[in-house]
Amino acid sequence: MSAEAKRNAAPLGLPIALDAMGGDYGVEPNVAGAVAAARAGVSVLLVGREPQIHAELAKHPGSSSLPLRVIDTSDVIGMEEHARDVRSRREASINVCTQLVREDRAAAVVSMGHSGAAMASALLTLGRLPGVDRPAMLTHLPAKTGFVTLLDVGANADVKAAYLAQWALLATVYLRVVEDLEEPAVGLLSIGEEDHKGSQLVLDAHALLRAMDGQGIRFYGNVEGRDIFQGTTDIVVTDGFTGNVVLKLAEGEAKVLLGWVKEALGSSLKSKAGGLLARGALKGLAERLNPSAYGASLLLGVKGLVLIGHGSSDEHAVKNSLLRAARAHESDLIERLKVALEQFGDSPASGQSE
Amino acid sequence: MSAEAKRNAAPLGLPIALDAMGGDYGVEPNVAGAVAAARAGVSVLLVGREPQIHAELAKHPGSSSLPLRVIDTSDVIGMEEHARDVRSRREASINVCTQLVREDRAAAVVSMGHSGAAMASALLTLGRLPGVDRPAMLTHLPAKTGFVTLLDVGANADVKAAYLAQWALLATVYLRVVEDLEEPAVGLLSIGEEDHKGSQLVLDAHALLRAMDGQGIRFYGNVEGRDIFQGTTDIVVTDGFTGNVVLKLAEGEAKVLLGWVKEALGSSLKSKAGGLLARGALKGLAERLNPSAYGASLLLGVKGLVLIGHGSSDEHAVKNSLLRAARAHESDLIERLKVALEQFGDSPASGQSE
Repeated sequence: MSAEAKRNAAPLGLPIALDAMGGDYGVEPNVAGAVAAARAGVSVLLVGREPQIHAELAKHPGSSSLPLRVIDTSDVIGMEEHARDVRSRREASINVCTQLVREDRAAAVVSMGHSGAAMASALLTLGRLPGVDRPAMLTHLPAKTGFVTLLDVGANADVKAAYLAQWALLATVYLRVVEDLEEPAVGLLSIGEEDHKGSQLVLDAHALLRAMDGQGIRFYGNVEGRDIFQGTTDIVVTDGFTGNVVLKLAEGEAKVLLGWVKEALGSSLKSKAGGLLARGALKGLAERLNPSAYGASLLLGVKGLVLIGHGSSDEHAVKNSLLRAARAHESDLIERLKVALEQFGDSPASGQSE
Repeated sequence: MSAEAKRNAAPLGLPIALDAMGGDYGVEPNVAGAVAAARAGVSVLLVGREPQIHAELAKHPGSSSLPLRVIDTSDVIGMEEHARDVRSRREASINVCTQLVREDRAAAVVSMGHSGAAMASALLTLGRLPGVDRPAMLTHLPAKTGFVTLLDVGANADVKAAYLAQWALLATVYLRVVEDLEEPAVGLLSIGEEDHKGSQLVLDAHALLRAMDGQGIRFYGNVEGRDIFQGTTDIVVTDGFTGNVVLKLAEGEAKVLLGWVKEALGSSLKSKAGGLLARGALKGLAERLNPSAYGASLLLGVKGLVLIGHGSSDEHAVKNSLLRAARAHESDLIERLKVALEQFGDSPASGQSE
C-alpha cells in the first residue's frame, strides 16, 4: 500500500474494506453497493484502481459527502487466476483488504471476487482463531421458518469430524450474537434421522456433537436434505463438499422452478390473464429466493471478519453484505467467538484433530 | 413359500413380483397400483397376506379377470425394523419377492417397503453382477431437459472412486437400453467445473472416468449442484451420501417452493383471482415435480431387476414402477449390463477395488 493510501485509510475509524474490483461485473455493482451502504450509515474503504473507482463514484450524485474513501492499488486477482497467487502478489486488492483488518484499520473485509483467493488471503494474513482447525464458509438459505444457516458451503472438501463439531459451536455463537437467536438448534446433515445412519464421518461427528449438547450448543440430531427448506433446525452443519452441492442445487432449483411457474402461468390465455394478476405476488417470492437478499457468506474461524460473495453479486448483495459486516463488527463477533472457543477448550472436540 | 404359493406363481410366465405389504400405507396403494398396471398389460404377483390382499382386490371391479395372482406370506419387515432381519426371516414378503426373481419365476421386484431391507434381501438372494463392487440406487429427477438420472441416491454412504466409475457405466447402459438414449453424457458431481476441484474421492474418480471416456461411457467432466436441474448432463454420478441429500433436498425444496407460490397467489384479492385462473396450469407443474411420476429407484448392480420406492408412494408410483420394471425386463437390461461389464473388464476402474 502506498503512503497516500495509508493516510486515506487512517481517519475513518473502523470502516469496512470492500474489494472494489472483485466479481464478474467489476467496479460498478461494488461502488453502487458501497454508496447504498454509506447512505445507510456504514463507512466503506473502496480498495482497487482509484481512477476506475472515482469514475464510477462520479455517477452517484452526492457520494462525495458520504463516508467513503478509496485505497488505491493496481493489482487484482482475476476470477480465472490461481488462489495461490495471493502469496506473491501482496498489492492485490484482496490482500490489501485483509491487511487493513489485520492492522485494525478496517472492521471487516467484503469481497465478491475470487473466493479461493479471498479464503487464502484471509488465512495467510489473519490466521485462524485458536481452537479452530479449519475455517468454514457459512451462508443462509431461505426456509419455511425464515432462513436456515448452513456451513461449510465450500471451504473444505475433505474434513474430519472435529471440524464439524467446531463449526457447530462457531455458528451457534454467530447466530446468538449477530441474529439474536438465543439457543439455536444444530442439525447434522445425514441420510436418515436415526443416530446410526450416515457415513463414517457423520457417525463420528454425531458422537462429538451429542457430547457437546447443552455445553455450548443445542444438538437436535441428524437432519435430512428435506429438512433444510422445512427449517427443522436453525443451523445445518456438513462438510464443504456436501454443503457446496446443497447451496448450488438449492439456488439452481429455485431458478428453474420459478421459470416453470412463469411458463405454466403463461401457457394458456386463461392462465396468462391469471399470471398477469399474480405477477406482483410472484415477484415478492422471487426476491425471497434471490441469494442477493442474504449477501455474502461469512468465512468463520479466521481472526477477523471476512465476507465472501458470489461473483455475480449485484449492488443489493454488496450493500447487504456491508451492512451485515458492520452488524457483526458492532456485536463484537470475533471476541465472542474467541471466548466460546476458550470455554470449549476442554471438550473432546476441541482443536486437537491434527 | 407354501406349495400352493409356488403353484400360483408358476402359470403366469414372468410377472413382476410386488411386495404388496410394503410402504407407509400398506396394501391399499399397492393393490390399486397393481390393478392399474395389470390393466395396462403387466402381469403382477402380489406378495403378502392373502386375506388382506383379496379384501383389497375386491374393491376393484373386474380385477379378477386381470393378470394378477396372490402369493401368500404372512411375514413383513416393518419400516421400523432392522434391515439385517432379512437374513433370518426367509418368509418375509421382500425375501419371497427376491427369491421369485432368483428362481426365474418373476421378472423383477418392486417394493415400497423398508428400503434397507429390500437392498439387503436383493444382495443376499440375488448377489452382485460380476465386476460390480457395490450396487447403487438410481433415480430420476425433473430437469429443464426432461429428467436427469442420478446415482447413487443412498445405497452407499462411504464409497471408493472405482464404484463411481462402475456406476457411470451401469447408468449409461441403463439409459441406452431402457430410455433409448444412445450416448448419454456422464457428469461427476463436484464443487467446481474445473478438473482439479473437489474432494480427494472426486479427483480420483475424475481420473478414472476421464480414462473411460469413449470406451463405454461419454464423460462430460465435473458438474455442480446447479447443473442438476439445468440438465447439463443426462447422468450425474456421486456417492450415496451426497446423492441422498440431493434427492431429499430437491423434493423438499419443490414442495416448499410450490407452497410459497400458492401462498403468493393467494396473498391478495387481486392475485387470488389470478391464482384461480392459473390453478390448472400450476397443477400440471406440481405433477411434473411429483416423485410418483418417476416411480421407484432402481437398484443397479445386482443380478436381477429390483425397484425400491418411497414408503409414501401412492398408487401412481406403484403403477409407474411396475411398468418401468416390465420395460427394463423386456429390454433385457440385466443381460446387457453383464455384456458391458465384461467388455469393461480390462479397464483400470473395473471391480478390483477390494
